[in-house]
Amino acid sequence: MTDEVILLDFWSSMFGLRVRIALAEKDIKYEYKEEDLMNDNKSPLLLEMNPIHKKIPVLIHNGKPVCESLVIVQYIDEVWNDKSQLLPSDPYQRAQARFWADFVDTKVYQVSRKVWTTKGEELEAAKKEFLETYKMSEGELGDKPYFGGERFGYVDLTLIPFYTWFYSIETLGGFKVEAQCSKIVAWAKRCMQKETIAKTLPDQKKVYELLGQFRRRLGLE
Amino acid sequence: MTDEVILLDFWSSMFGLRVRIALAEKDIKYEYKEEDLMNDNKSPLLLEMNPIHKKIPVLIHNGKPVCESLVIVQYIDEVWNDKSQLLPSDPYQRAQARFWADFVDTKVYQVSRKVWTTKGEELEAAKKEFLETYKMSEGELGDKPYFGGERFGYVDLTLIPFYTWFYSIETLGGFKVEAQCSKIVAWAKRCMQKETIAKTLPDQKKVYELLGQFRRRLGLE
Repeated sequence: MTDEVILLDFWSSMFGLRVRIALAEKDIKYEYKEEDLMNDNKSPLLLEMNPIHKKIPVLIHNGKPVCESLVIVQYIDEVWNDKSQLLPSDPYQRAQARFWADFVDTKVYQVSRKVWTTKGEELEAAKKEFLETYKMSEGELGDKPYFGGERFGYVDLTLIPFYTWFYSIETLGGFKVEAQCSKIVAWAKRCMQKETIAKTLPDQKKVYELLGQFRRRLGLE
Repeated sequence: MTDEVILLDFWSSMFGLRVRIALAEKDIKYEYKEEDLMNDNKSPLLLEMNPIHKKIPVLIHNGKPVCESLVIVQYIDEVWNDKSQLLPSDPYQRAQARFWADFVDTKVYQVSRKVWTTKGEELEAAKKEFLETYKMSEGELGDKPYFGGERFGYVDLTLIPFYTWFYSIETLGGFKVEAQCSKIVAWAKRCMQKETIAKTLPDQKKVYELLGQFRRRLGLE
């Protein structure tokens, strides 16, 4: 049987991008369906497949839905386990990878979002927190080329979509991430040399335009 | 080599209890170390072992820390894999279990906490949301004895600690969970028939006293 794989997603989603990178790493063919989130016009298929959260991304594998990005990525890694292993095999290393993926999911997401959804003093505080959080990530990266060690893995895949926000964050915040977190920028550029990443991540300026739309909706511009 | 297992925890923690149940299910001997969270007096060991979040529970296995309750439970399940399997073997079932554990971690925690940290109109709204959330959980439980099917598993273990809040929630909210969510109460009582659960969960009235202390600190009583 040929696998039928459908992805319900939104082009710039931090969470959807992880799934698309995982699918690219595993070289899985799939049908991409863009959801019209800008007009809050969710498809009946999305509402049917994720009735609990009604959120993208949703992976539909042979008719059965899997929801929540990190759950989906682990599912992909377990089902298509013959290529580009994402999670380490060793239980302790797996636990560390899950810990840092959770850190990205909560802390990195929160502080990054804060930079582009605030202004004035709040933005200044957000910038500080943003840099502190990336400093912590750099502590975990250490001198390894990837969070996964010699190879691109689960934590890398979880974090790299946030690189698409860097141009917006630097432009809105009036600073350069590289000046204080050069290791993270070097890591991101290393990831971007991979075709699976470069082809999947959207252009940072296109993302800046989108975030500008959100900022205007929030009355920040 | 004999495994050295230490758990840094707080007696009533929803998150710590999961780990203690997993350790009980696997019949793992460990040293329990209570953290003095009521006086915000965290031990040097906790700060050393979880420098990122500085939170319990932390499992220290042969000197190496694992943090975040669901990460710890998965680690325990992978390392001590010869007894009481917690996550299903099938990748799709595993993904579903991870999805529902995440639902408990975010949604159930949030709505349950809201009931005992509010009063008046806010409390009324919280009660409604609490019951709606448990109705969703009942949808997933269906007619199975456990979320894991015929056997107690990962989702059961993630959710059952919240049963220790039921007496507080019912007393503060002036309602009976059973009146609207009888399936969940029946499920909880079924879990309580297991020695690993009954011995691990603290007395609901002792928890009520503790939550009363928190409510007084919050100026709610």
